[in-house]
Amino acid sequence: MSNNQPIITLITDFGLSDEYAGVMKGVLLSHCPSAQLVDICHMVPPHNIIHGSRILSSSYAYFPKNTVHLVVVDPGVGGTRHIIVVESGAHIFVGPDNGVLSPALRSSELKKCYRVKNKDAPCPTFHGRDIMAPIAGKLAAGASASDFGTEVSPQDCIALPSPVCFLDENSITGEVVAVDHFGNVATSISAVDVYSLIGTLTITVRNTAVTGLAKTYSDVAKGELVALIDSRGFLEIGLNHGSAAKVLNCKPGEKVQVTAAGR
Amino acid sequence: MSNNQPIITLITDFGLSDEYAGVMKGVLLSHCPSAQLVDICHMVPPHNIIHGSRILSSSYAYFPKNTVHLVVVDPGVGGTRHIIVVESGAHIFVGPDNGVLSPALRSSELKKCYRVKNKDAPCPTFHGRDIMAPIAGKLAAGASASDFGTEVSPQDCIALPSPVCFLDENSITGEVVAVDHFGNVATSISAVDVYSLIGTLTITVRNTAVTGLAKTYSDVAKGELVALIDSRGFLEIGLNHGSAAKVLNCKPGEKVQVTAAGR
Amino acid sequence: MSNNQPIITLITDFGLSDEYAGVMKGVLLSHCPSAQLVDICHMVPPHNIIHGSRILSSSYAYFPKNTVHLVVVDPGVGGTRHIIVVESGAHIFVGPDNGVLSPALRSSELKKCYRVKNKDAPCPTFHGRDIMAPIAGKLAAGASASDFGTEVSPQDCIALPSPVCFLDENSITGEVVAVDHFGNVATSISAVDVYSLIGTLTITVRNTAVTGLAKTYSDVAKGELVALIDSRGFLEIGLNHGSAAKVLNCKPGEKVQVTAAGR
Repeated sequence: MSNNQPIITLITDFGLSDEYAGVMKGVLLSHCPSAQLVDICHMVPPHNIIHGSRILSSSYAYFPKNTVHLVVVDPGVGGTRHIIVVESGAHIFVGPDNGVLSPALRSSELKKCYRVKNKDAPCPTFHGRDIMAPIAGKLAAGASASDFGTEVSPQDCIALPSPVCFLDENSITGEVVAVDHFGNVATSISAVDVYSLIGTLTITVRNTAVTGLAKTYSDVAKGELVALIDSRGFLEIGLNHGSAAKVLNCKPGEKVQVTAAGR
Repeated sequence: MSNNQPIITLITDFGLSDEYAGVMKGVLLSHCPSAQLVDICHMVPPHNIIHGSRILSSSYAYFPKNTVHLVVVDPGVGGTRHIIVVESGAHIFVGPDNGVLSPALRSSELKKCYRVKNKDAPCPTFHGRDIMAPIAGKLAAGASASDFGTEVSPQDCIALPSPVCFLDENSITGEVVAVDHFGNVATSISAVDVYSLIGTLTITVRNTAVTGLAKTYSDVAKGELVALIDSRGFLEIGLNHGSAAKVLNCKPGEKVQVTAAGR
Repeated sequence: MSNNQPIITLITDFGLSDEYAGVMKGVLLSHCPSAQLVDICHMVPPHNIIHGSRILSSSYAYFPKNTVHLVVVDPGVGGTRHIIVVESGAHIFVGPDNGVLSPALRSSELKKCYRVKNKDAPCPTFHGRDIMAPIAGKLAAGASASDFGTEVSPQDCIALPSPVCFLDENSITGEVVAVDHFGNVATSISAVDVYSLIGTLTITVRNTAVTGLAKTYSDVAKGELVALIDSRGFLEIGLNHGSAAKVLNCKPGEKVQVTAAGR
């Protein structure tokens, strides 16, 4: 890979109150001075591999080909977990082998996985800085993934299970997967599944029911709950000009039911 | 417009805990690989058009000419509101026609407004990603605003009313417009109006009075309230080494009075 | 100094809810259109010079040579404090002379300090925007530090005292210097000092004792406290998959004791 202005994205659980993300950027620029660095999210909840994986899943495909995605949600840093480089479609991914790179590993465009050889690092608690950022920087500067490790089968890498979602003839049972900054409640139920039901839909979360599927928030009055397909292609419960999560009082893992009635 | 390294700024209410701003950056770079992306603020309170407009007003003029400003505070996304492109002075602005671009529309340097033609988007809840970012990216890459829509009169675009501020001979009545990260209390009262009063000034917010106008925070003792002209050219109540908002216990909308006494 | 794509880093206490950092970036790009701007941290607690200095100390050396570091934690803005430019090693630093640039001043690679001549600025409350950003931008664009002021002795600039740390034959007494985003508790006790003790170590903070020194968080069971050397080379108390600070209930300034027993 070789770009005029290569792009490296960052997803971490480092937060914004320390120097950790900034330090990784210094290392990235040391290895690839022409890189364009893009923060996708540093507010993944600490140690939350599932959430980091979801942020990656929802974002990487919007970047130009040859983008390097550096994902550091790494509670097992310095332990027995491996570090991997994954080539998938036109993108390349660097991160710990703990499931956070699942979207790359599960992709139909998955090409190759490499397990990083040398895990010795000056500091066993910050492999993001000492191992992964140097690799990501060198990849952006034109190095090959095979320079950094041995090819391994994707089956030997850790992929997270998909969020729960069951289909019956007239209903779907899924779960809340996340609550966003606006208080919109994201679910594990895909648009394809929702559209497979015929009849008027009722969406139920914690004894609150929303009837019908809208297109956008302003299809209902201000302050009212609304069910719609979100920007990731999944069922979401929102609230016009407010927070659905506050009204539903729900968290990731909560059961979500969609039922079709009449016709 | 054509730059070697075009600049695109971002102002949104997306917060920092999701992938939304990052995804828009992916789209921007897909349309303009050489763009320099600058976050101005993603912490506009959700749906707060007035606050978004104020952040834009206080920032855009500090950027080089030909900067593209993408402003996405868009509670009416997917509804009947339009999307507009505004050319004003040496800057160009892209955002929903809901008042958030008021600073561009009210500018004495306003040149032209265009209403975006095609509002069909794959997803009706994220026009920032699917309509506005592609336009901003293409503008930064050299496209003309007229490529994206029909010229409309600025009078047909939505501009917010200015914050309240009344002048009498010996007093001014304004309001709190924002509280910043430090707890400084910004008001709607301009420096020009403040300087028009003659005599010793007393600034009153919620029964607390500050006497005299200082130049900077350290003109008073640590922990004391201070009235001064802020970096935007408006009257502010601060507190040396602390938060004035905590002491005054006030929010946007609160009445602020300036009176001139004696001579 | 002259780079193809010069780097300017930013450390401030401006937070992320206002336009302040964005405005400085507009000014930086106005003076150096080709600059690569890197946010290290804008969440330094308001007015906390010691914390800003620590963020700088832990980050600057990871950036390529010729990087310009702009550090604006400036509670005395507009008052009697000076603004300085410090050349140290291959890096250059711009900030108020209030101790926040201590890591540059204390560096063994310190070359020269300049006190900025002209302190007149349009606005006495935002020298970051009106004085320091223009200087940082011009330095990145190739100007010399001597263009902006008169050389002064480093002894005439303000350096903060180092955090407290006393060594006895069998023990070290230091203090908590910071709590990070993960709840890891950083101390003033260096790895060198820790390794100078012989025997089994016990680390005590607020009546809680941790025995032994681990390499990384996952060396202990989930939920357990662990003492290790952090990524900055100092003793840290962490907790596997959680927050040590919550368990220890401690803040910066708290006493930390390391004792060596037996053999």
